[in-house]
Order: sequence, then C-alpha cells, then structure tokens
Amino acid sequence: MGIVLGANEYGKAENRLVRIHRDTARHEIRDVTVSTALRGDFSAAHLVGDQSRVLPTDTQKNTCYAFAKSKGLGEIEDYALTLARHFLDTVEPVTGARIEVAEFGWDRVEVGGSGHDHTWVRRGSEVRTTVVTVDGDGARVQSGLRDLVLLKSTGSEFAGFLVDEYTTLAPTHDRIMSTSLVAGWRYGDASVRGAGIAWDTTWADVRRILLERFATVHSLALQQTLWEMGRAALQAHPEIAEISLSAPNRHHFPVDLEPFGLANENEVFYAADRPYGLIEATVTRD
Amino acid sequence: MGIVLGANEYGKAENRLVRIHRDTARHEIRDVTVSTALRGDFSAAHLVGDQSRVLPTDTQKNTCYAFAKSKGLGEIEDYALTLARHFLDTVEPVTGARIEVAEFGWDRVEVGGSGHDHTWVRRGSEVRTTVVTVDGDGARVQSGLRDLVLLKSTGSEFAGFLVDEYTTLAPTHDRIMSTSLVAGWRYGDASVRGAGIAWDTTWADVRRILLERFATVHSLALQQTLWEMGRAALQAHPEIAEISLSAPNRHHFPVDLEPFGLANENEVFYAADRPYGLIEATVTRD
Amino acid sequence: MGIVLGANEYGKAENRLVRIHRDTARHEIRDVTVSTALRGDFSAAHLVGDQSRVLPTDTQKNTCYAFAKSKGLGEIEDYALTLARHFLDTVEPVTGARIEVAEFGWDRVEVGGSGHDHTWVRRGSEVRTTVVTVDGDGARVQSGLRDLVLLKSTGSEFAGFLVDEYTTLAPTHDRIMSTSLVAGWRYGDASVRGAGIAWDTTWADVRRILLERFATVHSLALQQTLWEMGRAALQAHPEIAEISLSAPNRHHFPVDLEPFGLANENEVFYAADRPYGLIEATVTRD
Amino acid sequence: MGIVLGANEYGKAENRLVRIHRDTARHEIRDVTVSTALRGDFSAAHLVGDQSRVLPTDTQKNTCYAFAKSKGLGEIEDYALTLARHFLDTVEPVTGARIEVAEFGWDRVEVGGSGHDHTWVRRGSEVRTTVVTVDGDGARVQSGLRDLVLLKSTGSEFAGFLVDEYTTLAPTHDRIMSTSLVAGWRYGDASVRGAGIAWDTTWADVRRILLERFATVHSLALQQTLWEMGRAALQAHPEIAEISLSAPNRHHFPVDLEPFGLANENEVFYAADRPYGLIEATVTRD
Repeated sequence: MGIVLGANEYGKAENRLVRIHRDTARHEIRDVTVSTALRGDFSAAHLVGDQSRVLPTDTQKNTCYAFAKSKGLGEIEDYALTLARHFLDTVEPVTGARIEVAEFGWDRVEVGGSGHDHTWVRRGSEVRTTVVTVDGDGARVQSGLRDLVLLKSTGSEFAGFLVDEYTTLAPTHDRIMSTSLVAGWRYGDASVRGAGIAWDTTWADVRRILLERFATVHSLALQQTLWEMGRAALQAHPEIAEISLSAPNRHHFPVDLEPFGLANENEVFYAADRPYGLIEATVTRD
Repeated sequence: MGIVLGANEYGKAENRLVRIHRDTARHEIRDVTVSTALRGDFSAAHLVGDQSRVLPTDTQKNTCYAFAKSKGLGEIEDYALTLARHFLDTVEPVTGARIEVAEFGWDRVEVGGSGHDHTWVRRGSEVRTTVVTVDGDGARVQSGLRDLVLLKSTGSEFAGFLVDEYTTLAPTHDRIMSTSLVAGWRYGDASVRGAGIAWDTTWADVRRILLERFATVHSLALQQTLWEMGRAALQAHPEIAEISLSAPNRHHFPVDLEPFGLANENEVFYAADRPYGLIEATVTRD
Repeated sequence: MGIVLGANEYGKAENRLVRIHRDTARHEIRDVTVSTALRGDFSAAHLVGDQSRVLPTDTQKNTCYAFAKSKGLGEIEDYALTLARHFLDTVEPVTGARIEVAEFGWDRVEVGGSGHDHTWVRRGSEVRTTVVTVDGDGARVQSGLRDLVLLKSTGSEFAGFLVDEYTTLAPTHDRIMSTSLVAGWRYGDASVRGAGIAWDTTWADVRRILLERFATVHSLALQQTLWEMGRAALQAHPEIAEISLSAPNRHHFPVDLEPFGLANENEVFYAADRPYGLIEATVTRD
Repeated sequence: MGIVLGANEYGKAENRLVRIHRDTARHEIRDVTVSTALRGDFSAAHLVGDQSRVLPTDTQKNTCYAFAKSKGLGEIEDYALTLARHFLDTVEPVTGARIEVAEFGWDRVEVGGSGHDHTWVRRGSEVRTTVVTVDGDGARVQSGLRDLVLLKSTGSEFAGFLVDEYTTLAPTHDRIMSTSLVAGWRYGDASVRGAGIAWDTTWADVRRILLERFATVHSLALQQTLWEMGRAALQAHPEIAEISLSAPNRHHFPVDLEPFGLANENEVFYAADRPYGLIEATVTRD
C-alpha cells in the first residue's frame, strides 16, 4: 500500500486592500481582505520540489491589487468572480480557484448634518463575506456575513427539553437570547450563470430579513429562530439555493441578588465568554 | 538598606454586566465591563498573609452587580462614582478606589421602519470609557473612547520633515490618513464636585467635535490634527480640564502597479498591520 | 419546490476544564478545552420549537466535567471516545457525536534542579488536538496539533516557478522558512476498533518526526517539505491512515540596508503579519 | 485661561525584527518587536504642522533595522540603550527617547538527540521585555517578562478575609492558584552607568527566583506570594532597585459534582476567563 499525495491547494491569504474611487470630489471606499487558493496538479512541487507549474502566492497577491485598479472593485462578488476566472483561464495548471473576500463597512463622518466627502468612520465589527469557487463545473457563489452581534431581552424561552442524569438546568420562559451570527447563502447555479444578481441589494435585503425575523419570532429555542430566519430568506429570494447559519449562544446569566436582599427580575446579567452553546443549521430547498 | 513594600492595589477586573431596564414594554440596555481597584494599607496581607483587612475581589464583583440593580445603571460616570464612593466610605482600610467602565453600544433593530422594543444589534467596535478615582482629595473623572477607527482618503500631507542618514521616506502631499483613536478627557475638579455635568450629552458632543475636526482640518501631520481636535474640544467644553489623544497611524501604502502597466493615483492601497506610527499628545489649559 | 431543514447539529463549545490527579503528593495535571456537537433528528426543535428531543448544551457541559471525575481524564482520545459513545448510546435521538479536545501543555517548575510536585509553567502556545466522531459507522479519530511555530534560517529555496505578467518576485536560493503548523492525522478504522493505539506516545513520535523532517529536508518549496513530513509520519506509523498539513508561510523579508551603506546577507529580516502564503496538503495511502 | 499643548511623544511601534547570526554553520536567532518613542519640543508640528524638527517614524524604523546589522543585536538591553542614545545624541530636537523591546524565545529542534544548527521551534507564549529610557538625567532600564503562566494545584489558601454585606465567598484552605505573570525590575542608576550588568544571566536568574518562590511559598494570599517573589529577587540582586509584579488571579473553580453523585475533592475545575482578580505590587528598597 503506497503513500500518495492527496488533496492540496495553495494561495495568498489575507491581502489587506483598500480601494478609493476618486473620480469626483465625493470619494467612495471599498475596504476588503482577499484570500486566494488554487487547485490543480501540483504534484511535482510536492514530490520533487519542481516549481515550474506553481504560480507564486506573491503573484496572486499582485493580481488582487492590479485587478482592483484595472477591473475595478465594486460588488465583492463580481471582483471575486473576475479573479477566480482569471486564474482558471490564464494559469495552465489551475483547474479550480477559490477567492474569499471579507468587506469592512465605513460610514461617512457627519459634518454639519451631512456626510463628508472623503472621511469615514468604521461601521463596526460586522463583516460582509463572499466565497467564490470557479472550476470546470462552473461558478459557485456563497455570500454572507459574520460577527453580527444580536441580543433580545425578552421573547425567548427554553423549556420542555430532554432530561437525563446529568441535567441540572432549570427551564425558563423568559431569557436573554444573544448571538454573534455567521450566515452564508449560496446562490443557485442558474442565477450565477445568468449573472443577473444585484449582489449589493440582495445582500442588504437578506441581512434585513435575518434581523427582522430574529426580532419578531417568539423563540422557543435558538434552533427555531434560525429555521425561521433561513426560511424567510429563501422565501423572499428565489435566487438563493440554500442558507447556512451558525449561531453561538452567548449566554447571559441572571445574577442571584437574593443574598443582598434584592430581587432580580431579568434585569442584571452576567455575560459569559465561555463555554457557549453552538447551534448550526442549513435551510435548503428540496 | 531594607526591602519594603511599595505601591500596591488590587481588585476585580473585567466584570461583564448587562443591565436591562424593563419597566415598560420598550426596554433599554446598558452593556458594560467594570473593573475595580482598591488602595489602602494592605501591608499585612503582603508581609504575613493576614487577610483581615482585605475585602475579597469576589465581593467587589458582587457589589458591581448589586449596585446595577439597587442604584441603577444609567450614565456610566454616575455608576462608577457611586461604586468608588461606596468602597471608600464603607470599607475601613480603603483610602482610594478606581473604577473603570467600558460601555458597548447597541442600536435597535429596525422592523418595518422603526426600532424594535427589545431587540438590538451591536453598534460596532467603538467603546465608550470612563475611569473614576475617588480618594481623600476628591473625585477625578476621565471619560473617553477607544477603537474609534477613522480614515480620510485625501486632505493629508507629510513633507518638509527632518532628514538624517537613515531617512528614505519620500515626502507626500496627498495620502490616506487613518487611525484607531483613543481619547480621554478629564473633567475639571470643580465641575465634578458641582455634579452638574450631563455625562451622556457631553460625551456625544466631544465625540462629534473630534470627528468633525478630523474630517475638516487639512492635515500637514497627524500631530497637527490631534492638536486641532483637542483644542476644539476644550474650546467648546469649559468643564473639561484637559484631553489626551493617542493615535496609531494606520499606514495605507499605495501599491506600485507600474510593473503591470497601470498608474496608481492614490486609488489602490495596502493596509498594513505593523509597524505603525504612534502619536500621543495632551491638550490642556495653562 | 419546498423549503426544508438541511444538515444541523448543536453542542457546547469550549468548556475549559482542568483535571488534577492528586492521589499522591506528586500531582498530575491535564488542561483541556472540550467541545461537543450532537447530530440526529432535531427537526421538531427547528420547525415548531419542540425541545423534547433536545438534550441541553448545559447538560453536555455537565457531562464533560462529570466524566473527568468518574471516567478519568488521561489520554484525550480515550476521554473523547468515552464522551462520544455516551451521547450516542444513552441519548435516544442522537445518531452521531463529535467531541473536540484541545490540550495545553504544562512543565513542572524546576526547584533546586528537580521538577516541583504541584507547580507548573505553561509550555507554550502549541496545542495538542483530537477530533473524535462516533456514529453508526463506528469511530473516527483525528489527532494532531496546532500553533506549532517553526523557523529555519537557511536550507530553503524558492526558484524556477511559473511566471506570468503579474509576477515580480525574484527567485531565491536561500531564505528563511517559517510556519505555524496545523497537523491532523486520522487513525485507520481497524486500529481504532482494535483500541490498541498508544495515543500519547504515538502523538509524541509523530510530532518528533514532523519536526525532524522540517529541519533536515533541504526545501525547494514549502509544498515539498510538507510532503516529506507527511510521508515520514505515514511510513513510521502504519496505524495512521492519512495526515493533513496546513502551513501558513510566515514571510520573513530581508530588509534592504543598502541605503545605509550596509550589506544584508540574510541577517536582518522584517517578519510580516499579513498577507501570508497558505499551503495545504494531505498525504494518504492508496 | 489659554489652551496649550501638554505632554507629547511619537514613534514607530511594533517593528517586527528577526536577526540571524550566521558567521558559522551553527546559526543564532534573536526575534524581537521594537517600539520607539521620542520626546522633545515638537510644538511647531502640532500648532502649525511644521515638520522640520520631526524625524519620521519611518526613519526610526529604518534605524532599528540598520542597527541590528551595524551594531548587532545581542542582549536586548544593550540594543535598546544604543538606539536610545543614538536618537538623543544625533537628532537635535530630541530630549528623551524610550525604546521598548519584547523578545520571543526559540529552542533548537532536536534531531537525533542534539539541537539542530539552523532550525528552531518557538518556546512559548512567554515574552522577555525591556523598557529603556534615556534623557538628560541618564539612562533607566526596566527589564522583565510577561505572559508567564503559572499554576499550583495546592499550597494556596484564602481565608480570614474582611466580610461585608456583599460578601458571599466561602473561605478555602486548599485551592488552585494560577496567574499570567507580568514582572518588571528596574536596575539601579549606578549599575546602569557602570554598564557592568550581565543582562542575560541576570534576567534568567530573576526568572528562576520568581518561579521557585511561586512554587515553594505556602500561600495565604496572592499578595503574600508576590511580596515573597519580589523580596527574593531584590535580596539576590543588589543591582536591582525595585520590582513591580502584576498578577491576574486566573480563577479555577471546583465544579459541583454532587448532583451526579460524585465527590470533587479539588480534582475537576472550571477555568474561568473573566472576571479575574488583579493583584499588583511593587517591592522596593528604602
């Protein structure tokens, strides 16, 4: 039984890139982190150190920066598709390319009641993401977000659960529910081929739906909330094939104030770091 | 020459506390991290391990949570002053108490065009801070912010600087200027005694001034921008005695695209992590 | 086309657990972070919020701590297998359980030339890992390590690579090669069933082999080094079915000192944070 | 009452620098992060943006790298003193310079029982530090360490403490004591002037003493342990004027296993992240 090379890929991770569009006095900004990964037959590089089929990761980095100028950097999905197709089409050994982009939001600084032309303040920790894979089977686009921190101070229960000999948790009909949401939705293959997707507006609308459902669903469990969030996104957007949600349950424990003669009616909480529940679900179409 | 105990203090750091005000269906949230530190004669604890004058850090933690209920948690400066005075007034060995509070902002989730009653999304990485010290000399309040990330895409120069044999930097008359601002302003003693300070509105107004000056000052150097920001804050707020600003210069380097036949007219930048310039200045009154 | 629930799982992540064995005056320590994840038919929890088949994540946490006492916590693979089998065997809806354990090393503090009985110093950032999955098909064990930071100051080349119009990198025949290695090796199914694997000694030996090969292979590319590391591990350990290696290329760039009249013959380097090359490969058996 | 510029300084922070000494086949490595800060009369830069007295932070960075070649990089205290004196002596407006160096340890990879010539593995998270300040009053050197994580599984009590109405903590005569130590010791002025200090060996010996005292002192409180550690360092090293210790109390709470019919005799602990006690003390000479 021989020893052989299995799956492998390589690329340049976390290229930090800021693109300023300054054709007029009112500048626009796109702030992204781009990672590339190439697949193909790179066995010679592994087995005998022959690099003749290996495009350096430094070159991949250069390409990210050059394309931000020559092709522009608008919607991150378009930018990633262009990069991925370039590597697939022009680099002979490459049979598949995956481009990941994380975008950081900026708001214009308010000066005298209106947004300044060329000064911004970072919007927050939330990050918009896309992962684009292009290979012989076509293009796959999964867009989403991460680090979207949500909290509701009521409208969440957890009761009627399975009990075994290691269960000490008391059921509750009113608790804080909080998460740092990671969401990724995959666009249908036909939609991507058709290239008719309005990436920015779709992204904003899915985000709006996720937030609204998180707020308005009376939650019997985080699982139920995730399902309702995902279902609503799919109902509103036929161009989306499926959505995956990963939600850490950021526990907020009511502090026992009885020793101090105080009643704590869900008013004072200890926000714990670890451990945390982790609930993950995909909502799809059959 | 003997060996003696010098300065010492102890407390409970980073108590994570969320306070929900839920007297009506429209909840309010305050999300803070509180740290306590007590000073006094604790030499017996050090020299012979005698704890009889040491209030446990666990008790300090309990007090933070209990006060969030019994005294309320509104403006963080008031909360911190109440805690500090409590330790000074009721714990015999304590001669000084320092309370640090970091507050994280939340925005109401928009549902159908208006903010939801009990659901929020984290505003961002920016943190509001206060450090309150109370001892025999009275109370000292330094409020501020950190992790306020700003960027301007033009209106910033750096030229005419001192040159020595290790200087290779080229002067520039148009560059990106970006920072992750830390600011702390100390309120005048008389103002704190008078207790007439509107902590929340003053904080918001100082933040507004800092942002506006960052945007509108045509900058010949980050030093100049900091000076103008601090000066404007002091001019508008006589209750502030001095302000300290610490500004990492988050370098954004234009990428050389000439090897690819492209001109880069301050459009495509590499955002560097380290090293970074670090400019620190205090603006005060004479 | 209906909307349906897809893949889902849930558990308690990052339970921080320290186990002291203190049967004699010479204590032993195991310091781990444990994460659990359960799979099964939890559709009712998602679709209608019915928790009657959901064992709380709090219970999973309790089980981790209780088993550390009742079953002991020695080799982390045994501990994880015991936990996974417990959830599969005793919790009716569970059809699969995945347990991840990260172990942090401690060395005894030296006192007068020998290791102290009950005092330790943390060994470093390196972490030993295992991921154990048990379901109807049996048990799968993938052990490994992460954050193992390596550097060689010579014996590494990168030349003869593919060049396109975006390539500016110069070839080099002597460079620093450094990585923060992530490795995971999967034990063969028969070996796991046989339960005859000496987890601790195998782990230590694979680690030794990886380090030695990193040191002694004259590297024409990081890909080649990874292949040689993986191949040597498989050659020495027939109980291992395959090994996956993920290696960020922590770039160390020679600083240009010529402007200062100094020659830099690979002596002074700037250690960059981002971007970094990322090379990933699996070595397996055919 | 006018508004004036107060204290200010500027420099280049966190220059990542690796120095390889390769005069023989057996290489040596020094891996440091260097930060510079300059003080002087930089009021024109602040008040009117005049940079003519400002040596760029980029130049300071260049100097760090150039000196690592031209002056060498051996003991970090010597390197920092040389840099600080250079800025003070050669840059006209500079009246004070502070250089901070953090050094990361590497161990040689073992190959066939002996340390490899040019391959290393990172020693761990522990960092050696120095802060050197040179101004008109001379040189001040404070060396130390941070992120030294220690744990003892017995030999630590906490009882007999002050109790108030917010105290719920139970006294204990056997607990885990763990910390992530930060220590900084200042060398006496005369010693620094005399330049006769063996920086590396002194550092190693102080570290040894701190570890041994942490292990061997039966602790009635973390305060007592810190005092004994500091006192022992001063007793052994007359060249040290004072030592400051900052010790987060990394709480390890015994898990209540009684609900599961198990006794937990200080064997199974939950290692908490936050909050943590924070004990700080300086031991000095009178």
